[in-house]
Amino acid sequence: MNTTAEPTPTDALHARIQRDFDRSGLMKQLGAQLAQVLPGEVTIVLPYSPGVTQHLGYFHAGATTAIADTAGGFSAMTLTPDDQTVLSVEFKINFMAPAQGESLEAVGRVLRRGRTITVVQIDVYALNAGERKSVALMQQTIMNLPLPPA
Amino acid sequence: MNTTAEPTPTDALHARIQRDFDRSGLMKQLGAQLAQVLPGEVTIVLPYSPGVTQHLGYFHAGATTAIADTAGGFSAMTLTPDDQTVLSVEFKINFMAPAQGESLEAVGRVLRRGRTITVVQIDVYALNAGERKSVALMQQTIMNLPLPPA
Amino acid sequence: MNTTAEPTPTDALHARIQRDFDRSGLMKQLGAQLAQVLPGEVTIVLPYSPGVTQHLGYFHAGATTAIADTAGGFSAMTLTPDDQTVLSVEFKINFMAPAQGESLEAVGRVLRRGRTITVVQIDVYALNAGERKSVALMQQTIMNLPLPPA
Amino acid sequence: MNTTAEPTPTDALHARIQRDFDRSGLMKQLGAQLAQVLPGEVTIVLPYSPGVTQHLGYFHAGATTAIADTAGGFSAMTLTPDDQTVLSVEFKINFMAPAQGESLEAVGRVLRRGRTITVVQIDVYALNAGERKSVALMQQTIMNLPLPPA
Repeated sequence: MNTTAEPTPTDALHARIQRDFDRSGLMKQLGAQLAQVLPGEVTIVLPYSPGVTQHLGYFHAGATTAIADTAGGFSAMTLTPDDQTVLSVEFKINFMAPAQGESLEAVGRVLRRGRTITVVQIDVYALNAGERKSVALMQQTIMNLPLPPA
Repeated sequence: MNTTAEPTPTDALHARIQRDFDRSGLMKQLGAQLAQVLPGEVTIVLPYSPGVTQHLGYFHAGATTAIADTAGGFSAMTLTPDDQTVLSVEFKINFMAPAQGESLEAVGRVLRRGRTITVVQIDVYALNAGERKSVALMQQTIMNLPLPPA
Repeated sequence: MNTTAEPTPTDALHARIQRDFDRSGLMKQLGAQLAQVLPGEVTIVLPYSPGVTQHLGYFHAGATTAIADTAGGFSAMTLTPDDQTVLSVEFKINFMAPAQGESLEAVGRVLRRGRTITVVQIDVYALNAGERKSVALMQQTIMNLPLPPA
Repeated sequence: MNTTAEPTPTDALHARIQRDFDRSGLMKQLGAQLAQVLPGEVTIVLPYSPGVTQHLGYFHAGATTAIADTAGGFSAMTLTPDDQTVLSVEFKINFMAPAQGESLEAVGRVLRRGRTITVVQIDVYALNAGERKSVALMQQTIMNLPLPPA
């Protein structure tokens, strides 16, 4: 997309989120990937593997939730100054259909950014044989915090 | 506790839940363990490891949530007939303190079992140097379903 | 829109929802009005009055929630057969801005209708001097039930 | 209870909460009463009346929620300095049984008070013929805010 040598603001944003994503041991352990970073919107993909299943072989609600929470938190972080970080205060998630397929895709979108509190909505889709089906919906409350001293 | 050769109903219940727990690939991938099974109450322990962390090195909210959701679902399952299974309809979780420590412990307790819907509350504690601190609270809605054909 | 004498299916749907709305003592007590009924989408309006306020004079979160829950339940009911009714299993609501203005408008939209469970999203807006501002977002779980015998 | 002329700290706390309760037009409109005020715990009672019902004649989920939210907010306020107020960030409520009876009782209890965020749990009971039955459970997130200038 970007053929010049200059990094665009979006490149820089992606790099910043990628750095924190790569520090998340859980994302690595599950095999999740950071797919897209836009201001206020982050997408994470989780390929199916035996390590993300529940007892019936579907994606475990905990795996679905882990990428949804992460996509939400990082979408809030794209709108946060460099000297702050974000923390999940709470979230609620509805599981609307069995999470079956080749991969899951969680798309977080900031609905309202306040000074202290940011509200994010996250859609989770199952991808299978070229189809994309909505399987879960999360509503999340994020708090903006000063970064702990390095 | 049980010195006779006869398995008690509690032994049988534990064995039944353990069987489904062992089928959950996510619990294995995270290193979670089924700690206690009582009628209407299930405890899961998650030792700290690099594979369960977020970007600041705490337990990832997704890992906290995964064991909370599992403890909740299995506590509902302890009260469910053999020909049924359970599905998470939805849940909400508040993160009340940073999840730091040697391990997390999620304790699910059924609050109300209905014919179709079961409501469960799950407390998550961080264990550190002999102390046990409340770090998260989940309120979960479970649906009872006929088992899919084997 | 409808210039013939024949009632359209939408007229009949509106009449059915209006009948149940008029039976809701709380909606009357608060002064709420059924504004629009479409298949899977219902809008309720609540004019400002001293009887719907909290201690600072804004719309009370309980009033905001009452019309949101009602709009959600009725939007589920528009897709429900005549011999069934609906019950709120649970909901979660985020308050995103102070609810101030001449009136509130709650718009419920069915996201997924299942056999037993319907998931609904409800947006609440404050209307003031011709402007419409998002003030709350609800995610609601509805159960479809056979009607109690008359 | 208190036979001396000196108001106790608990009297003063009750008076402070009563003052804000009395400013809430919605509580008056519904006929709700402030029943008990303790540090970190507030109880509100709502007698049955035609003005608090849904279409089947039970207490409306919106009325149940209104007193639960209020009991939660005020229980947080009992632990808040005089120069601050509280705002509901969000809450989630499960309806566990039909809300039928002579009155409802909402008991809010602070689970964790943080500097910015307070987490509260609220139980709602239906009282009928001397019995007290759990009908709803709310988990609520409160933000502490400086009071707006008088």
